[in-house]
Amino acid sequence: MSKKILVLAGDGIGPEIVAEAIKVLDALQAEGAIDVTMEEALVGGAAYDDCGDPLPAATLEAAKASDAVLLGAVGGPKWEPLHFSKRPERGLLGLRAGLGLFANLRPAFLYPQLADASTLKPEIVSGLDVMIVRELTGGIYFGEPRGVETLESGERYGYNTLCYKESEVKRICRVAYDIAMKRGKRVCSVDKANVLEVTEMWREVAIETAADYPEIELSHMYVDNASMQLVRAPKQFDVMVTTNMFGDILSDCAAMLTGSIGMLPSASLNAEGQGMYEPIHGSAPDIAGRGIANPLATILSVAMMLRYSLDAGEAADRIEAAVSKVLDQGLRTGDIMSEGMRQVGTAEMGDAVVAAL
Amino acid sequence: MSKKILVLAGDGIGPEIVAEAIKVLDALQAEGAIDVTMEEALVGGAAYDDCGDPLPAATLEAAKASDAVLLGAVGGPKWEPLHFSKRPERGLLGLRAGLGLFANLRPAFLYPQLADASTLKPEIVSGLDVMIVRELTGGIYFGEPRGVETLESGERYGYNTLCYKESEVKRICRVAYDIAMKRGKRVCSVDKANVLEVTEMWREVAIETAADYPEIELSHMYVDNASMQLVRAPKQFDVMVTTNMFGDILSDCAAMLTGSIGMLPSASLNAEGQGMYEPIHGSAPDIAGRGIANPLATILSVAMMLRYSLDAGEAADRIEAAVSKVLDQGLRTGDIMSEGMRQVGTAEMGDAVVAAL
Ligand SMILES: CC(C)[C@H](C(=O)O)[C@@H](O)C(=O)O
Ligand SMILES: CC(C)[C@H](C(=O)O)[C@@H](O)C(=O)O
Repeated sequence: MSKKILVLAGDGIGPEIVAEAIKVLDALQAEGAIDVTMEEALVGGAAYDDCGDPLPAATLEAAKASDAVLLGAVGGPKWEPLHFSKRPERGLLGLRAGLGLFANLRPAFLYPQLADASTLKPEIVSGLDVMIVRELTGGIYFGEPRGVETLESGERYGYNTLCYKESEVKRICRVAYDIAMKRGKRVCSVDKANVLEVTEMWREVAIETAADYPEIELSHMYVDNASMQLVRAPKQFDVMVTTNMFGDILSDCAAMLTGSIGMLPSASLNAEGQGMYEPIHGSAPDIAGRGIANPLATILSVAMMLRYSLDAGEAADRIEAAVSKVLDQGLRTGDIMSEGMRQVGTAEMGDAVVAAL
Repeated sequence: MSKKILVLAGDGIGPEIVAEAIKVLDALQAEGAIDVTMEEALVGGAAYDDCGDPLPAATLEAAKASDAVLLGAVGGPKWEPLHFSKRPERGLLGLRAGLGLFANLRPAFLYPQLADASTLKPEIVSGLDVMIVRELTGGIYFGEPRGVETLESGERYGYNTLCYKESEVKRICRVAYDIAMKRGKRVCSVDKANVLEVTEMWREVAIETAADYPEIELSHMYVDNASMQLVRAPKQFDVMVTTNMFGDILSDCAAMLTGSIGMLPSASLNAEGQGMYEPIHGSAPDIAGRGIANPLATILSVAMMLRYSLDAGEAADRIEAAVSKVLDQGLRTGDIMSEGMRQVGTAEMGDAVVAAL
């Protein structure tokens, strides 16, 4: 049966990079390797411009009715002056909450062909392959109460709540352990259990949940130390699992270790295996519309989509191999360009991946 | 008039490294460059072992009565099984709260002599000199309500509160701006204003407070981007100011960029200029008692103490110059050892600094 993909191109370079990802899907479809139908909808600044809402009800409904969502990127300076509730990011957070996408998978993977792009010494990052599993629908991002009030003294007082229920911790730990079982079987749970009670509970639940995974080697690290260790010796990690906020910070740090965030995809999954897939980089408004953005992270997001939501692991493998092949061929977009390579634009890179499938 | 220093050696390598810092103070005292009296007290695991409390009332009283506190390090595996309220870290947090040490200054400075120690490429970190100003007595570290409860469903529910009052934000911004005025006059305030209301208020107050500092160039960055930028191009920063939790994470990341956390001091100040000074590294229980720990971060903490709390900036300059000189002489403790240098122990390093004064 045909699987439904909702395509949300979003803002900035979103439309350009998504167009290349669609080329790849079309190519696989044409040869019968996958069976998908695609629909498009608006989100983020583009949706706000259209109807005053960064997440129109129709978009959320269409997302719920699809097997997977492919997202480009949202945001840009144009919408920054808007009120909190209308900004493009709200579209993203609304999709996460609305679809219950509690598990955010963010691989930090160094392509050997791009080892030079890292700001770290080659021996520190060569072969880097860390999977960060970030809790995505709980914690301080969504915790109540929250807000800013004016105290009797006349001064403002702002507050947010970092909260987790045991069941929320358990399910994200299970995702991390399941993934680790298919990799190196080592999971590092990151918390601040020496200061924050909620993460002391997180650590307890992580340990209890691991009882069902006798083969998993579970360790624990405080978040400050984790941010140090990512810089000191990132290859010590296999899978890391952590809260929404810590995951936001650490996954960006880990991604930057590779030096090429234009290459990194991500997946956000719910309990039913439905997922949203997007590059980890942003909407890069400064280069939007110029045909020079790197489409590979979006194309690799399609591979994750095929693997995790559309039960097409073989097609996913082929995409990943094709990306590696175009790198071997020496093709580079501007963000990953280096001496002796051939610089290409967004469309040429997409075409090259299709040709390499 | 003689200034009072309370010396808290603490746990692990604490006593060894503090002993070397005292040598330096004694040498300056002997030649009349400073006029101090020193007293010792217990904190952390050592205090727990003595009287069952990581921060005995007598220690807090002595700290309040002193002009400055010199702290070694606290903690170790021995005390990890203890209840939250009895662990060595509580001693540290209790001192911060008890003395009102709201401003934590954490320089990330790369000694040219140690450029090789960094895991980052030399061109990325050479000349690195960032000052991170971390709020230290508020935010989620101390916010109420906090705790873990059992819901009616029987599952645990944990929560902590991230909260700030306008006045707390204002005073830490002032510290950052004052410091920046003596440096590059650029301050980057780090928040998560696109998600957390309390940090949206933080950003507003940072902007309002900057009105009194027309020469300061203020910028804002989301915390996830800041953790990326520290890895990508750390030299873009002069002074960074942020919340307690974000500061904990980012300052450790920034410190590790230098590759030699055995070199980095820190200061924690209150509104009266009273301060606590300590190396940013931990108690390193694995090497405690072996006479091989690097005392330089503690000795450099003494320099910060002389500058910020004891009004002896000249003596501070001399200590810093002496440390640079011993590095020029090729002396290295094990943690910063490299080819062609001469490896020395804790005491020999301390003696060398005294000789170089
Ligand atoms: C845009 C923002 C709300 C979002 C987040 O903080 O989760 C982004 O940083 C991310 O990591 O996807
Ligand atoms: C030991 C711990 C409570 C402390 C903190 O989190 O503040 C430490 O990490 C630090 O940064 O001084």
